[in-house]
Amino acid sequence: MTMTDYGFDRRHLLGIEGLTRLEILDLLDRAEANVEIGRQANKKRDSLSGRTQINLFFEASTRTQSSFELAGKRLGADVMNMAVAASSVKKGETLIDTAATLNAMNPDVIVVRHHASGAVALLAQKVDCSVVNAGDGAHEHPTQALLDALTIRRHKGRIERLTIAICGDIMHSRVARSNILLLTALDARVRLVGPSTLIPSAFRDMGLEVTTSMREGLKDADIVMMLRLQRERMQGSLVPSVREYFHYYGLDPEKLAFAKPDALVMHPGPMNRGVEIDPQVADGPQSLIREQVEMGVAVRMAVLDAVVNGRGARTEGSA
Amino acid sequence: MTMTDYGFDRRHLLGIEGLTRLEILDLLDRAEANVEIGRQANKKRDSLSGRTQINLFFEASTRTQSSFELAGKRLGADVMNMAVAASSVKKGETLIDTAATLNAMNPDVIVVRHHASGAVALLAQKVDCSVVNAGDGAHEHPTQALLDALTIRRHKGRIERLTIAICGDIMHSRVARSNILLLTALDARVRLVGPSTLIPSAFRDMGLEVTTSMREGLKDADIVMMLRLQRERMQGSLVPSVREYFHYYGLDPEKLAFAKPDALVMHPGPMNRGVEIDPQVADGPQSLIREQVEMGVAVRMAVLDAVVNGRGARTEGSA
Amino acid sequence: MTMTDYGFDRRHLLGIEGLTRLEILDLLDRAEANVEIGRQANKKRDSLSGRTQINLFFEASTRTQSSFELAGKRLGADVMNMAVAASSVKKGETLIDTAATLNAMNPDVIVVRHHASGAVALLAQKVDCSVVNAGDGAHEHPTQALLDALTIRRHKGRIERLTIAICGDIMHSRVARSNILLLTALDARVRLVGPSTLIPSAFRDMGLEVTTSMREGLKDADIVMMLRLQRERMQGSLVPSVREYFHYYGLDPEKLAFAKPDALVMHPGPMNRGVEIDPQVADGPQSLIREQVEMGVAVRMAVLDAVVNGRGARTEGSA
Repeated sequence: MTMTDYGFDRRHLLGIEGLTRLEILDLLDRAEANVEIGRQANKKRDSLSGRTQINLFFEASTRTQSSFELAGKRLGADVMNMAVAASSVKKGETLIDTAATLNAMNPDVIVVRHHASGAVALLAQKVDCSVVNAGDGAHEHPTQALLDALTIRRHKGRIERLTIAICGDIMHSRVARSNILLLTALDARVRLVGPSTLIPSAFRDMGLEVTTSMREGLKDADIVMMLRLQRERMQGSLVPSVREYFHYYGLDPEKLAFAKPDALVMHPGPMNRGVEIDPQVADGPQSLIREQVEMGVAVRMAVLDAVVNGRGARTEGSA
Repeated sequence: MTMTDYGFDRRHLLGIEGLTRLEILDLLDRAEANVEIGRQANKKRDSLSGRTQINLFFEASTRTQSSFELAGKRLGADVMNMAVAASSVKKGETLIDTAATLNAMNPDVIVVRHHASGAVALLAQKVDCSVVNAGDGAHEHPTQALLDALTIRRHKGRIERLTIAICGDIMHSRVARSNILLLTALDARVRLVGPSTLIPSAFRDMGLEVTTSMREGLKDADIVMMLRLQRERMQGSLVPSVREYFHYYGLDPEKLAFAKPDALVMHPGPMNRGVEIDPQVADGPQSLIREQVEMGVAVRMAVLDAVVNGRGARTEGSA
Repeated sequence: MTMTDYGFDRRHLLGIEGLTRLEILDLLDRAEANVEIGRQANKKRDSLSGRTQINLFFEASTRTQSSFELAGKRLGADVMNMAVAASSVKKGETLIDTAATLNAMNPDVIVVRHHASGAVALLAQKVDCSVVNAGDGAHEHPTQALLDALTIRRHKGRIERLTIAICGDIMHSRVARSNILLLTALDARVRLVGPSTLIPSAFRDMGLEVTTSMREGLKDADIVMMLRLQRERMQGSLVPSVREYFHYYGLDPEKLAFAKPDALVMHPGPMNRGVEIDPQVADGPQSLIREQVEMGVAVRMAVLDAVVNGRGARTEGSA
């Protein structure tokens, strides 16, 4: 694990916004080295041995919490999951009191998911340890963008100059937002595809290609990245009906054919089969969806190691 | 730990059905060796060190999940419990997507409980790791049958030719089904006792003794194995009332007197005291109920070790 | 870690009642030695290595369960949390059956919180392992009192002859009860302050100073210990209204000024800001509230180590 002067050496990972290209590449390189560890019989490392990791999830999540839990345990950390629904939050304790209480137990890193944008950054200001954003409202989900980039790079050899179509509910998606920031920082061509009600105008202003047509959006795409349509949207006024949504925006073999023949399909999960994606595509030969999950553990190991040991190294090391 | 050519060397443990007598005896012998470990101050072994175990429970269970969790931890595994109620299953993710997601995180073994018969075998087809059935619908609960057999063997010195009465709601019981398969494979004489509404006719066709009379069923029995009456049955049409059920089928000292004087009493737990069993019997000198729980951890250590390391040994070992 | 003939050498910690002054001081000294461990990068010790700790919480609690979990893990124990809401207790299993089941899995220590006073002592009679009371009804919460004493001693250098005002809902508070027992055993002057409906007359009979006036109760106090007002009390007939409660008993800067200028403020958490305490005081320079949480982990490490290894040493050691 090399630490260059330009590599990632921050105390927190709160978002992709503000990271340099070199910081992102450093995290991807470190994650790459972890992929093989997960495939061995002995998956245990000791770089977080004796350290304490707290997973503080204000929203339930199978895959993200599990991924962080396994990442921490494989690095040797003591990992504690906070069952927030069953906790003092019910008793009226505030986010900040919860954070201050956990902080007093001297964790080395707190991994936080919260339904409010900006809640994780606020929490990071109140604690002495490292904080990793595992998703905050519609704001950011940085480890998802990193694992997506790692998955793409392993298959295409690079990110730059790839045409990547992000499709669906862009508006409410922290996954989309973090991916747009990361992929543009690495010089990919990012296109946004979805109903106009679900694409914020700010992205148009950023100079991204925006289209309401899957045919247009997927044309010559190297990567088709589908987003989850939240159930609560399906009943709302932003989408006419699930059936119509699938007709126009659900990724089926016909729509996928608009993209390059070797285009690859991604989805952050959990999927709504038959809503934003057809099972044939989800389970088909162009799908990277399972591999994204595997890369998630490798990326989170890299991030946890970086925020905990980078800072420690900086504090204890000589100039 | 000896590995004979005839011992248990499967990738999964999905049920007792299909196991040979020698495979069953091999697992019992391995479990026997684990009993002393649980009684020592240092209960830690390293045969699953660096390995990842996921407990995926779609039905809540105090004792079974705890037993698998302690078994895995005592073998040195990183154990992750999936809180399924709080997970993506709520978001509409299917069993198979959940399995594929977990599989992508490279676990070495997944322990599964599911309310549908056959769900665990289906899941095992979709993953690369070992799968252990911790109870699927009314189908099988193989580690329960193994721990029952281990408990019996430690007290009676053998299984063969013992007369074992299994009493109560046979129809809906995966415990009964796995026990019938295991005990007959080891040449015990198995009798089924319960209201005719709760005994499937298939067992009669298998040549087992079936009776609706506790007096007849317990006569000369060495082992009286009581089953839990599910609460939902108590309101159903299959049982007249809890009081009447206890009168005819609840194991009290009077009914236990029909069995041999040294007969032993078992129950898989959790017990409904005053429904299928009288507290005097449950806590009496003939009860093995607590010891069954202890044997559970020893059996699960043996099974986890066998499915993970047996397969690994086979893959890596020379011919 | 020194073991004097007069130090704490009990199998269980069920309450402060019955502990000698020397036993209490011994636990505080052991805890003191753990404070630095929590502040190091490597927080891991091995005094519970190979041991099994079960946290059995019948009432949800963020901070107490987390604190015991981290304490056990930092000592090297395998820690298992029992999600009681999701467990067999729902299926009608009794407290005693749950205890007997867990006991059969050969844990070394069970940490129990229960809503009924006396439930933890009852459970301790039914198991072979050590039991630590993490709060039982309105009875005791001994580790809270120990961590409060440790926090005070670190700041004031002693407990004896300090004037300590315990304020609020004394009646329903196990925290108050354990603190009264511990602080008087160490010769502090304890005053109880609160509405007369919330102070049991028994304490008056014990010879403690009791007052309904914060001005009178806080006069010359070295320590002001606030109690949580349970939400269910707020709607009850014991308290007129939240607003009025705060007016008379909520600790704000004006009331704190009645105490000594260097008085310190404590609260067991979670706080109801604006009910029993003003945020300005809770987060102010005289507040020890965060430090109490940190001391909690150190105290629980000391207690877990003492009950598990003290007893083992006694059993295995020579006379």
